[in-house]
This record gives sequence, C-alpha cells and structure tokens, in this order.
Amino acid sequence: MNKEQVVEAIILAKHARQLSWQNIADELEMGCVWVTSACLGMNSMPENVADKLCQLLELPAGSQAALTAYPTKQWQRDVPQDPLVYRLYEVVGVYGDTLKEVIQEQFGDGIMSAIDFSMDVAKQTDPKGDRVVITMNGKFLPYKAW
Amino acid sequence: MNKEQVVEAIILAKHARQLSWQNIADELEMGCVWVTSACLGMNSMPENVADKLCQLLELPAGSQAALTAYPTKQWQRDVPQDPLVYRLYEVVGVYGDTLKEVIQEQFGDGIMSAIDFSMDVAKQTDPKGDRVVITMNGKFLPYKAW
Amino acid sequence: MNKEQVVEAIILAKHARQLSWQNIADELEMGCVWVTSACLGMNSMPENVADKLCQLLELPAGSQAALTAYPTKQWQRDVPQDPLVYRLYEVVGVYGDTLKEVIQEQFGDGIMSAIDFSMDVAKQTDPKGDRVVITMNGKFLPYKAW
Amino acid sequence: MNKEQVVEAIILAKHARQLSWQNIADELEMGCVWVTSACLGMNSMPENVADKLCQLLELPAGSQAALTAYPTKQWQRDVPQDPLVYRLYEVVGVYGDTLKEVIQEQFGDGIMSAIDFSMDVAKQTDPKGDRVVITMNGKFLPYKAW
Amino acid sequence: MNKEQVVEAIILAKHARQLSWQNIADELEMGCVWVTSACLGMNSMPENVADKLCQLLELPAGSQAALTAYPTKQWQRDVPQDPLVYRLYEVVGVYGDTLKEVIQEQFGDGIMSAIDFSMDVAKQTDPKGDRVVITMNGKFLPYKAW
Amino acid sequence: MNKEQVVEAIILAKHARQLSWQNIADELEMGCVWVTSACLGMNSMPENVADKLCQLLELPAGSQAALTAYPTKQWQRDVPQDPLVYRLYEVVGVYGDTLKEVIQEQFGDGIMSAIDFSMDVAKQTDPKGDRVVITMNGKFLPYKAW
Amino acid sequence: MNKEQVVEAIILAKHARQLSWQNIADELEMGCVWVTSACLGMNSMPENVADKLCQLLELPAGSQAALTAYPTKQWQRDVPQDPLVYRLYEVVGVYGDTLKEVIQEQFGDGIMSAIDFSMDVAKQTDPKGDRVVITMNGKFLPYKAW
Amino acid sequence: MNKEQVVEAIILAKHARQLSWQNIADELEMGCVWVTSACLGMNSMPENVADKLCQLLELPAGSQAALTAYPTKQWQRDVPQDPLVYRLYEVVGVYGDTLKEVIQEQFGDGIMSAIDFSMDVAKQTDPKGDRVVITMNGKFLPYKAW
Amino acid sequence: MNKEQVVEAIILAKHARQLSWQNIADELEMGCVWVTSACLGMNSMPENVADKLCQLLELPAGSQAALTAYPTKQWQRDVPQDPLVYRLYEVVGVYGDTLKEVIQEQFGDGIMSAIDFSMDVAKQTDPKGDRVVITMNGKFLPYKAW
Amino acid sequence: MNKEQVVEAIILAKHARQLSWQNIADELEMGCVWVTSACLGMNSMPENVADKLCQLLELPAGSQAALTAYPTKQWQRDVPQDPLVYRLYEVVGVYGDTLKEVIQEQFGDGIMSAIDFSMDVAKQTDPKGDRVVITMNGKFLPYKAW
Repeated sequence: MNKEQVVEAIILAKHARQLSWQNIADELEMGCVWVTSACLGMNSMPENVADKLCQLLELPAGSQAALTAYPTKQWQRDVPQDPLVYRLYEVVGVYGDTLKEVIQEQFGDGIMSAIDFSMDVAKQTDPKGDRVVITMNGKFLPYKAW
Repeated sequence: MNKEQVVEAIILAKHARQLSWQNIADELEMGCVWVTSACLGMNSMPENVADKLCQLLELPAGSQAALTAYPTKQWQRDVPQDPLVYRLYEVVGVYGDTLKEVIQEQFGDGIMSAIDFSMDVAKQTDPKGDRVVITMNGKFLPYKAW
Repeated sequence: MNKEQVVEAIILAKHARQLSWQNIADELEMGCVWVTSACLGMNSMPENVADKLCQLLELPAGSQAALTAYPTKQWQRDVPQDPLVYRLYEVVGVYGDTLKEVIQEQFGDGIMSAIDFSMDVAKQTDPKGDRVVITMNGKFLPYKAW
Repeated sequence: MNKEQVVEAIILAKHARQLSWQNIADELEMGCVWVTSACLGMNSMPENVADKLCQLLELPAGSQAALTAYPTKQWQRDVPQDPLVYRLYEVVGVYGDTLKEVIQEQFGDGIMSAIDFSMDVAKQTDPKGDRVVITMNGKFLPYKAW
Repeated sequence: MNKEQVVEAIILAKHARQLSWQNIADELEMGCVWVTSACLGMNSMPENVADKLCQLLELPAGSQAALTAYPTKQWQRDVPQDPLVYRLYEVVGVYGDTLKEVIQEQFGDGIMSAIDFSMDVAKQTDPKGDRVVITMNGKFLPYKAW
Repeated sequence: MNKEQVVEAIILAKHARQLSWQNIADELEMGCVWVTSACLGMNSMPENVADKLCQLLELPAGSQAALTAYPTKQWQRDVPQDPLVYRLYEVVGVYGDTLKEVIQEQFGDGIMSAIDFSMDVAKQTDPKGDRVVITMNGKFLPYKAW
Repeated sequence: MNKEQVVEAIILAKHARQLSWQNIADELEMGCVWVTSACLGMNSMPENVADKLCQLLELPAGSQAALTAYPTKQWQRDVPQDPLVYRLYEVVGVYGDTLKEVIQEQFGDGIMSAIDFSMDVAKQTDPKGDRVVITMNGKFLPYKAW
Repeated sequence: MNKEQVVEAIILAKHARQLSWQNIADELEMGCVWVTSACLGMNSMPENVADKLCQLLELPAGSQAALTAYPTKQWQRDVPQDPLVYRLYEVVGVYGDTLKEVIQEQFGDGIMSAIDFSMDVAKQTDPKGDRVVITMNGKFLPYKAW
Repeated sequence: MNKEQVVEAIILAKHARQLSWQNIADELEMGCVWVTSACLGMNSMPENVADKLCQLLELPAGSQAALTAYPTKQWQRDVPQDPLVYRLYEVVGVYGDTLKEVIQEQFGDGIMSAIDFSMDVAKQTDPKGDRVVITMNGKFLPYKAW
Repeated sequence: MNKEQVVEAIILAKHARQLSWQNIADELEMGCVWVTSACLGMNSMPENVADKLCQLLELPAGSQAALTAYPTKQWQRDVPQDPLVYRLYEVVGVYGDTLKEVIQEQFGDGIMSAIDFSMDVAKQTDPKGDRVVITMNGKFLPYKAW
C-alpha cells in the first residue's frame, strides 16, 4: 500500500463516517492542519498517531506503514490555479519582499523554517462577512558564517 | 516622481535616520507589514498617511502623489529564489490542498480574499531558538451561483 | 463518483435527450453560463439545484454528492490554444492595463472579484454578421489598509 | 516620436490637466475603454481623433504620427500578476470551456472576434458593495470549409 | 464515439483502401488541406460532407456525429519539433514582423483571419528539385474603433 | 554600424521620403517580402542590392557593410503575441500535422526548406471584405538514408 | 502496427539474437547511426531495407509498413537530461555561435542541412583513454534572395 | 577590460585588417574552431597564444588578461533560434538517443566529454552542392562505481 | 524486465526483509550512495555486483540484465520540489559561482566531473542537533585547447 | 553603496593586489568558500569580518555597510549553463532521490539545512588526474508534528 492508496482509503472512510477533518484531529489530539496534511500524504505520521487513525477509520492492512512512510512532497504547478490556493501564492508574491524586510529587521539575517513549522486556521466571525485567520509558526534559522 | 523613485527615497531617508520599519509604522499608527509593503511600492497609501510619511522622512516634492498612486503589483519569478521567500512558497505548495480542505470545511465553497486582507509578523521567544509567527487575516468570499 | 465521472454522465444524458445547455438552465431556473460551468465541474451546485438536475437527466446514484462537492479549479495551459478561448486570453493581454486604468479611475484602488461574480452570453443580430455579447459582473473589492 | 514616448507625454499631460480617461473620451466622443487603450499604445487612432487629442492635451510635434501608427501588441507575462488583471485571466481559465460550449451552442462552430470587437466598463451601485460590469461585444466568425 | 476515435477509424480505413488524402478530397469535392484537417479532428464537417465520408470509408455508427462535432483545437508544444512543422514555425518567427509590415501597408491596421481562412498545397516541378507551394487565403479584419 | 542601427536608419529615411516597402522593392527590382525582411535585419543583401538601397535612401557610411552582413535570426517569444503574427502561429499549430500529411503524401518523406524559400503577399479584393493571400514557395528536401 | 510497437519488437528481437546495432547495420549494408535511428523510429526506411530487416529479425507482420512510414520526430525535453545527450546539447550551446562564424566564413550566408545529412561515430583508441569521434556531414544550403 | 570588451575589440580589429578566422588561426597555429570560440569569449587562451593574438591584432592593454580569464559559459535560449544553430539542436534532438545507443554499444556505460574535447569544420566540394563536415572528438568517460 | 520493474522488485524485497540501504551496501561491499542510486535505476551495476544483489534479495529472473543495463538518467522537474532535494538545488544556486571561483582558482580552467565521481553521506553527532555531511569527489577535467 | 558595487570593488582590489580567495580567507580567518560567497554578495558579513576586509583591500567608504547588509539571494537560470555549475545541478538531478533515501534512512523524516550549513573545497592529488573534493555540512532538521 502506497501513500496515494492510503489517502484514497482515508477519504472514502471519512466520507462514509461523515467525519470532518476537525473531528479526526480531535480524536487524534493533534492540530487539524497537520492531521489533514498527513492524511493527504504530505507529512509522515508518528506510529502511535497512525495507529489511532487506523483504528478510528478501520483502514485496511498496510495503512499504518503507508502513513508512517516519509513522503516525497510535490505539487502540480509552479503557479497554482485553484483560486483559494492562488490567493496564497499571490500573498507570497505581493508581500514576499515585505516579509523579508520585517522578519530580518526583527531577527537578523536568516529565514523562517518551513520544516520546524506549524500552521493553524481559525474562523473570526464578523457581521460584514466572516474572516479566515491563518497562523504560521516557524523556527527562525540564522545564517551561519564559517 | 514614480513608485520606484519614492521607494528609493524612502530607503535612503530611513537609513540616514536609522529608523526601523517598526519605528515608521508606529509614527504612522498603522501595521508594520502594511507600512513596509506600501513603502516598497506594493500598496497605495491613503492621503493622510502619505502626508505623515512625507513629513516624517522629509521626502522630496511629488512623493505624496507617488505614494497614493495605485500600484501595478508584480514580482520577479514564478518560483521565488531568496531562501526566506522560497520557504513561504514551499508552504503554499506543501499545504495548499490542506488549507483548501480545512478552510472550505469550516466556511463552505469559497476563498480567503487577498485584497480585503491583513497580515502581521511577531516574535515568539523560545530557549530552543526564537520563532517567527505570521498571521494572515482575510475575508471569506463565498462562490456565488446565478 | 467524482467530478469527472458526473461531467461525463451529464454530457451523455444531455446528448441522448437532445437538450441544449440553455434548456437545462431554464429547467433549473439558473443562468446558462453558471449551469454550464457547474455541469463541466468548475462550480459546486447548491443541493436543491443538484437534485433538480439529477431528476431532469436521471443521473446515477452518487451524482448529487459529486455535483455539490467543492471543485479544484484547474485549466490545461497557461496560454490557451483553442481559438475561441485564445481570443479571450488575447483580450486580457491587450486590454488588461486599460481595464486597470478605467476600473480604478471609477472605483479607487481595488479589483473586480472573480468569486462574487456572474457572467452572461447573449446574441446580438446584425446584418453584417451576428455579434457575441459577453457581460461580466463582479463585486468591486477595495484594498484594505491596516 | 514612437508609441512609448507619446504614451508618456499623454500621461503627463493628463495628470497636469487633472483629466480622467472618461473626460478625454467625452471630448473625443469615443468609448472610454478604446480611448484609454489607444492612449496606452495598444490601438491606432484614426487621424481626426488623433488630431483632437493632440489639441486637447497640447501634445508635442510628432504625436499625431505616433498615435496613428499601427502598434505591435505585446504584454509582459503569459500569466499576469497584478491582482486586477489576474482575476480576468482566472475568469478565462475557469470559464473558457464554458464560454466555448455556450457560444458555439448559440452560434455554431466559430469564434468571437477580438479584432472586430468593443468593450465597455460600467459601475452598478449596490448597498452590499458596488459592482463592476464589463461588456464585451465581438463579431461572431464562423469557421469556413473549403 | 469521440473525435480521437473517429480519427483512428478514418486512418485505418484509408490505409485498408489504399486511398490518399487527395483521393478522399476529390470524392468529397472539397479542398485537400481542409479535408485532411477535418479528418485529423481539427475542423468540424458539415453534415452532408460527413455523410459522404462515412459512406466512402464505411465508418462505424457514431462517426457522423463525431465528425460534425465542434473540435477543441490543441497542439502539443509551444515550439513544434517535427522538422517539417518546425520550418513553418521558423518562417513565422523570421518573417512575422515582415508580414505585419507588408500586410498592414497594403490593408491598413488589422489582421488576416485564421478562421475565415483557407489553405492549399501544390507541387511545382523543378529540375533542381521540386518545390512545395503553400497558399494561405484569409479575410482581412480591420481593427475597430468605438 | 550594426544591423540594428541600419534598420533604424532605413525606417527613418523611408518615413522622411514617404516611401512604402513596395516602392523600395520596385526600385530594387526584388520581391517586397524579401526586401522588407532584409531591411528589418532578417536577411543579408547581395552587394549590388545593398548599393542601390544606400543610394535610394542616402543611408550613412557603413550601411552597405551592415546590410550585407549575415544576420543572427532571432525573435522575441516562443508564442508570438501581436494578433497578426499570432494568427500565423495558430495556423501552424492547427494545420501543422495536416500539412505534414499532405506534403509528404505528394513528395515523400522530407520537408519544405525555409532557407531555399520565398514568400509573397497579395491582395484579393472581395465585396464581403478583401482577403490576404500569402504564398510560400520552398524547395522540397527529401530525407537521406546513408 | 505503429512505430512504437515496431521499435519494441526490434529491441526484443535484437536482444534475443544478441545482435549489436553494428551487426544489424552490416547486414543491411547501411550506416550504423542511420540504421539505429530508423530502428528507434526517427527515420523511415526504404522498402528494400525494411524487407531485409524484417527477414533478419523475423519481425511480425505489419512491421515493414511501420518501418517505411514517415515518422513524426519528437523528443522529450527542450533541455535533455541524460548526461551523454546533455553534453551534445552543451556543445551546441557553447560552440553554436562559433560554428555559425566558421561555416558562414567558408560557405557564405546559409546553413548546414539537417535533412540532407549523415552522421557517423568512430572509436579512436588512445592510451590516455579512448576517444569518441562523431562526424556530421550536411549539405550547405545558401539563403535565397527573391 | 572584461571578456565582452575584448570580444568587441577583436571583431573590430579583424574587420579593419580584413582577416578571416582561418587567417587568425593559422597565425596562432591553433585550430580554427577553438580560436574562434576563444575570440568569442567561450574559452580561455593559454598566455602565449593570447600574447600572439594581442600582437597580431594590436589589441589594447588589458586584452591579454581578459583573453586568459576563465569564462562563464552561457547561451541565450534553451532552444536556439538562428536557423544554422537550430539545425544542430535538431540533430541532438532527433539523434540523441541513437548516439547514446551507438556510443555505449562501442564503449560501455559512460559519456563523451565536452571538456576534453575538440571540434573541426571542413568543406567537402560536391557538384550537387558543397557539404559541411563537422567532426567532434571527445574523450570517453566511463561511469565509475564506488 | 526493465529498470522500473527491477526498482519496484528491489523496494518490495528490501521492505519484506527489513533491510536498510546500508545493509545492502555492506553485503555488496560497495558505497551506500552508489548502491542506492543503482537500485533506484540511476546507475548500471557491474555483472558481479548485480549477481550478488539478485542472490541477496532473491530477485526474479531478468533482474540481472535490467540491473546491468545502461540507464537513461532523467529527473522530473527542472526545479525540484521535495524540501530535502530543493535544499541541494538551492545550494547549487547560491554557491554555484562561488564554487566556480574556488575550484578554478585551485585547479585552473576546467570542471569537476560528474561521471568519474563518487559521493558519500555521513552523520556527525552534535548536541545542538546532528549534522548531515555530504562529500563529493570528482575528477578535475581541464579544458583542452586544440 | 550597494552589494553589486562592493562586489565590483572587491574584485578590482583583489586583482590589483594579486590576492587569491584563499589568501583573503586566511587573512580573515574564515573558510574560503564562505568568504568567497560573501565577497560575491551571497552572504552577509559580521561587522568585525567586514572591517578586516575593508582594511585589507582598502575598500571605499560605505563598503562595510554593504558587506553587512542582508542579501537577496538570486541566480540567473533555473537550469544553470556554465559546465562547472551544470555538473553540480546534474548531481542533484541524478542523485537527489538517492540522497533523500540515504539521509532519511539514517536520520528519520526531515532535511539537511541549507542555512545552518557550511561547505568546503579541497584538492586530492592523484597521478591519474587530481580530484575535487566538496564537503557539505548541514544541520539535520526533523519535520515537526503538531
């Protein structure tokens, strides 16, 4: 069983049980964004989390191994097309240099890690239309001189 | 005076006065990310904010008009190369489908606006290494059927 | 049943019943462009509209779920090739900066939404050759300062 | 004097006189979108219209010839980046196949011309936020068999 | 039956009957280039022509509908690679600006239509090596001011 | 003096003398398309033709050498954007495989040369709108087995 | 049977008989590079050569037709990746302008044909490491003025 | 003085003295292709060769250093456009896999070096049209197992 | 059996036997990086090494031939996306010119071979976090003048 | 003074003083690769190192600020062309998946940092030809679950 197959099995089981990603994350006691990314094959699960998920969704044999395997992360297009994902890409384009200025002003020369990293999504209700709040949290890595 | 010229003038004046972007934002009473993006030419300033900035940095004549002009937003490469900006691009690639799943589960079919949008950067001190916290806040826009 | 499968089922049923997109739109009491785009898998249908369509075309079980699912919008080429679609792309290339000037002159700094958006096609008869009239209607979204 | 130079001269003169594109179009008694596109160098002006514009803006010698010259139409990027223009590109991507279906259902096999073509922008006021209305009008050209 | 399937059926039948494209075109009383392009799926056939072709080649049921369907025109690469096709692309690259000068000098600002268009191939015998003569014939479309 | 400089000098002199490309070609007793392409720097002129052109347009010293130099042929974009040139590119895309079939059926396996090649443009008047007639004439080169 | 199928059949038969390309070329009394290219589907074989090959390798029925068919020549990537092929590409990049200078100095304005063309590979033994010797031989085609 | 400047100085001096590349190569007692490539900035010259060239062409001070500097080799386009260079690229595309088969059959797994490499151009007179003969000679480098 | 099939067979057998790449390399008495690359199909194995591997993993008949076949080396994207591989690509981008300066300063004009080449990975334990040490060892190839 | 200007000043001063990068690195008591990369503008220097360099090379006023500024790291082409740099890119292409397998087998799911990273180049003398030894040393960063 490979990553693609376990992703498909999870989506079918989630659908059949009428579970949301949030429900699954609550059961696994992990963050919803991380759980979703691991279920979509973009992160590897620690063994005990994979075990819980296999039980929760009654996934077929071989699923635990596929969930704990280290994925090759890839995406389809250099410039994403789905409007929701494109808007995030546009934010990186429009505000990329700004973030470089602001982060390096506060932290010195270096970057925010995308590996030692977490992310969260929340809803902020608003009478003029609800708002999506995305929070990224990454370790600052200073450049090293040698 | 065009956008590029006023950006150059701001950077020189900021450097001469030893101001940080945060100092400037505090003077203008606006968010640091937005102020930086407008000073880098990626957003237009309301007139009164532009006036304050012109006074603060003693910018040359014509600067106010250039700051309030509506910019054409462009970036240099489809795939950014500077490591700090690339990591953000990588986050969009790795977590793009995940965010689509999580946001649309909470809000329905639609997107997070990148126009009715704000962003903030904060430092979270940590003995194992400080962390960068980026918060995005965008209006949810549901798809319309007609 | 996924989006691609329901699209195929719709096209077969439409062909067998000799219906036009306009006929289907009239039955669903929705706009022809929107109905066509949802039938081609580029928009999600509200449940009641999907129900009507399933009845009208006697679509197989699972079609309603596939029609109401939120699509991932994608297209095949950065520069389209079919002559009809290319001409629209050419219009965006030739008149893009013009539209930016004219819209922002009337509305201020901001964009026309492609989400809170509708579109219509009409025929204008003309002795020198009929004309296609496409009307787009999108909410103006002003840029936000923060 | 070439196209780029006359475009620059027009923008300076328009700015100095505080004229809008709509004001200029009204003076020339032509459509605002067409006038703007010709002033930005993407269309050639008939001689009498160019004459009027030269008088109105007191453009330097050689402007008339540059305005009536036939332009080479080009744009900067296959996928546009400015958010206003990108949204139009996204509309072509998302609705391109839909428009092909709907137009060819009404008109037969052929295309909408982008040459024998006009376009208009209007504002529709709306308490929930004003709306941009873009109307395209192009001659239908049927494919020829021979 | 879709376009690809009918193209395959035509090629097999043509091969079995040892017919050339010219033979088929003569039977259909249409131009050889147009007939070939329609048989390769790049143009739609009028019903009576499709009927004749179905009889001539004894094509399977459903072929007529596939032949009269409006095709989505696409090609495989931005820069073609087969040497015969590449040479035509090279001609467009090398002589594109020249043709623009010469055509617009004779006709005014506008283009040659690729829709209201026909093309022919002939052999010119020559003792130093035969020559290929390609003739394109397209309606001139003047740009419209509005 | 290089190719670019002589091209500029020719265009200025042609404009000052109000000559058309056809006028120049008539004086040089060569084809109009070839003359235009050589004047735009895409072909080298034989010495006697270059001499005549230098006299006709009173070109500066060094022009003859620049006109007879062998050019490096280049064009700006893989997919051309100016509508007149794009239509020719579209013809190659839509009819490329067709031309391969038709030419190789008549001539055997090989190509039409783009080097031992000439091209002509003519106007065909037509009450429904004049037509552009482009004729290409290239030597057939058979593939060689060895 | 198409080109791809006959290529596969040839490779299997060659492998089963433990023949080298050189062996096959010797049997066919043709050059090894040409024979290999035709066996890989990149050139068409004259009938008598195809007949010999079919006998030599006992290829299945339909192979002769597939071998004599005129191929559509295509390759996978604009910039090749296999190191052996990339080095040839690098030679074209590094020495392309040099070859243009040297060939046109000797022959005048024109090109070396890649159609009326042959190529050979030989081994030059050398105590410091054997050397590969590739010889290309193409007809010079002068540009034509008209 | 950098590479670009010395290239320009060489071309001017060569032109003034009416020398061919072959003349220069004969004077330097080196191969014509190598001399041309070094004069165009694509190879570094050993000191004594650079000295001879400086004397021969009376190049300005600093030329020797620029000629012996190690160049950064670059070319303008992934797919070359000048017809002479494109034909070489086409040869790599059409015959790349063939050369891989033939070379590796003779030499084993490895490549032909493009560094320990030489190349020569010769003219083969032929009553049907002269022929260009290009010979490449590169060291075979076997892959190493470790 | 082709390369892809033997790669799949190896991965299954390795997994079933719970072997690491290091275990396999130790058995074959070859370097771990080279063994892994050959098992992933990117290098050919000498016969005796392939024999040992077939015995060790009890690979199916035909595996030895597939392992000793000379591979066509290819990778999926010009810019890799998996974060581990991208970081290596980033190192080449950021330090490429630096390595050129430092290597050519030490060795003269030439390159480091990627064919006569080996590579090793080691772990350096560190209380602040273990470190990956990659060592590349390639023959220096000087450019040749001729 | 910006990065580009200080890079130019360093190269001139280094040349005038006949210093190698190794000489400069020895004076600064830092690694040669890091020093070179900082002198080429791809890393920022700590203040004290920049001071030493300014004294050593007698750089103009403003150089220290430019050397300590945080660079925007960029490179010219997705696929590098200079043969020395291309070989490194080829290594990433050919061995990228292998390195992922070998590193993640030893360290778990994660990456080698290109920020907390150092690199060294050494010469290994060898009678069959000297060898280049490149050593990369980067912190292992495990993926985080949250």
